[in-house]
Amino acid sequence: MNEPVLLTGAGGAVGEAILGGLEDDYEWKLMFHSPPVEEPDHDYVVGDVSDDEDVRAAVEGVGAIIHLAGDPRPDAPWNSVLANNIDGTQKMYEAAVDEGVERFVYASSNHAVGAYEDERKPDLYRTHDDFRLDGSEFPRPGNLYGVSKATGEIIGRYYHDEYGIDVCNVRIGNLTKGHPPIDYERGQAMWLSYRDCAHIHERALLADYDFEIVYGISDNDRKYYSIERAKEVLGYEPQDNSAHFDGEERVADPT
Amino acid sequence: MNEPVLLTGAGGAVGEAILGGLEDDYEWKLMFHSPPVEEPDHDYVVGDVSDDEDVRAAVEGVGAIIHLAGDPRPDAPWNSVLANNIDGTQKMYEAAVDEGVERFVYASSNHAVGAYEDERKPDLYRTHDDFRLDGSEFPRPGNLYGVSKATGEIIGRYYHDEYGIDVCNVRIGNLTKGHPPIDYERGQAMWLSYRDCAHIHERALLADYDFEIVYGISDNDRKYYSIERAKEVLGYEPQDNSAHFDGEERVADPT
Repeated sequence: MNEPVLLTGAGGAVGEAILGGLEDDYEWKLMFHSPPVEEPDHDYVVGDVSDDEDVRAAVEGVGAIIHLAGDPRPDAPWNSVLANNIDGTQKMYEAAVDEGVERFVYASSNHAVGAYEDERKPDLYRTHDDFRLDGSEFPRPGNLYGVSKATGEIIGRYYHDEYGIDVCNVRIGNLTKGHPPIDYERGQAMWLSYRDCAHIHERALLADYDFEIVYGISDNDRKYYSIERAKEVLGYEPQDNSAHFDGEERVADPT
Repeated sequence: MNEPVLLTGAGGAVGEAILGGLEDDYEWKLMFHSPPVEEPDHDYVVGDVSDDEDVRAAVEGVGAIIHLAGDPRPDAPWNSVLANNIDGTQKMYEAAVDEGVERFVYASSNHAVGAYEDERKPDLYRTHDDFRLDGSEFPRPGNLYGVSKATGEIIGRYYHDEYGIDVCNVRIGNLTKGHPPIDYERGQAMWLSYRDCAHIHERALLADYDFEIVYGISDNDRKYYSIERAKEVLGYEPQDNSAHFDGEERVADPT
């Protein structure tokens, strides 16, 4: 990749996981919502994704975008997800196509399909249950945050169809550092380790595709999201599995 | 239906078709964006769907909603569809569940899936082509207006799953009065006559369902939207077909 990759929401947990794994492998341009406490080792901007000028300044000169920025709270109020997640994502796409950016990786969320769980929980969080969502299903958000994330996917669909920009939506599971959530079956079912998070985003930067929706989780025994599409199209090869942390192994930390 | 039905966007073409067919059969409460030129025969309010107080005043006391209001222009700019179509629809749903409204009929649009046409046009507008969209497919908007309409469907999915309100999304085709569009194959393929428009909305008020996405078109020979789901779930029985207006018959007007 010759041009820098813009990473928005660089101050959040997903940004930390991505930079932790790929910091030295790409030229990064970071976008923060608040000024970073430590001076970054990379080019960066501070701005608001719902401010058009801030977005244009962020996108200037980049060749690809990993768009993580937005209100990340599952219980965020409508006005915030409308401005930060929906409007912010449209502004980012608009600036991207104007700048000639060729690839857009979008941090979608498990919450875009959270309501599928209602009829099957807690069974679907368990190893014996074979139910899978594969990314081709119609969104069923479990909250207004999930509505905003599903809307981001549809905005991406439009910009892909209309302007040809490659779009990969990663419906991110439950990202935690070091080990899976403890005593939280749902979180274990959709765990995403830091190194698998960095890896799937690297594959989304490099693989050959047009428009994709994939699940970003580790290869958990408990999973109810299929990772077949991510493996097939992106070449995703997860190394972690929340089951490896059961019982005695819980203290192990492969990252 | 014991309580009034709120019809938003009552001044538009879809509202005209619905009231033209069903005016005497229900107790209506109308919402207009601008004061109506003629004094309506029904209870009405004037207001803006992106104004929370206006929306609350409109929803007060109604038992069902047919939500047509929004910017109807396929080329409407983002800021307008964000405020009027996306934010306005969320506000309407929020007020509806607070008011205990049990049924919400949403005017979605063919533009929510417009990009499916790109690879097959003009063949799919023609009788010999068997391609069909059936409403289960992931949205592929053809413009930002279509993005806003697909988002309205997802907002409805959330409010249905979370609060149990019945939701029917009608992806309305090309509504014209009297006869189908002339020399416009796409419009003939997705023509919706005024009487079929009134009828499908009446069925959406009366039929038994949970959450539906159906196509609102007449039974056109040229159709590439399936009307099977509307027939099966709503009991939709369209009477018109744009083919009846070909050649000699073009001057006929069954409405």
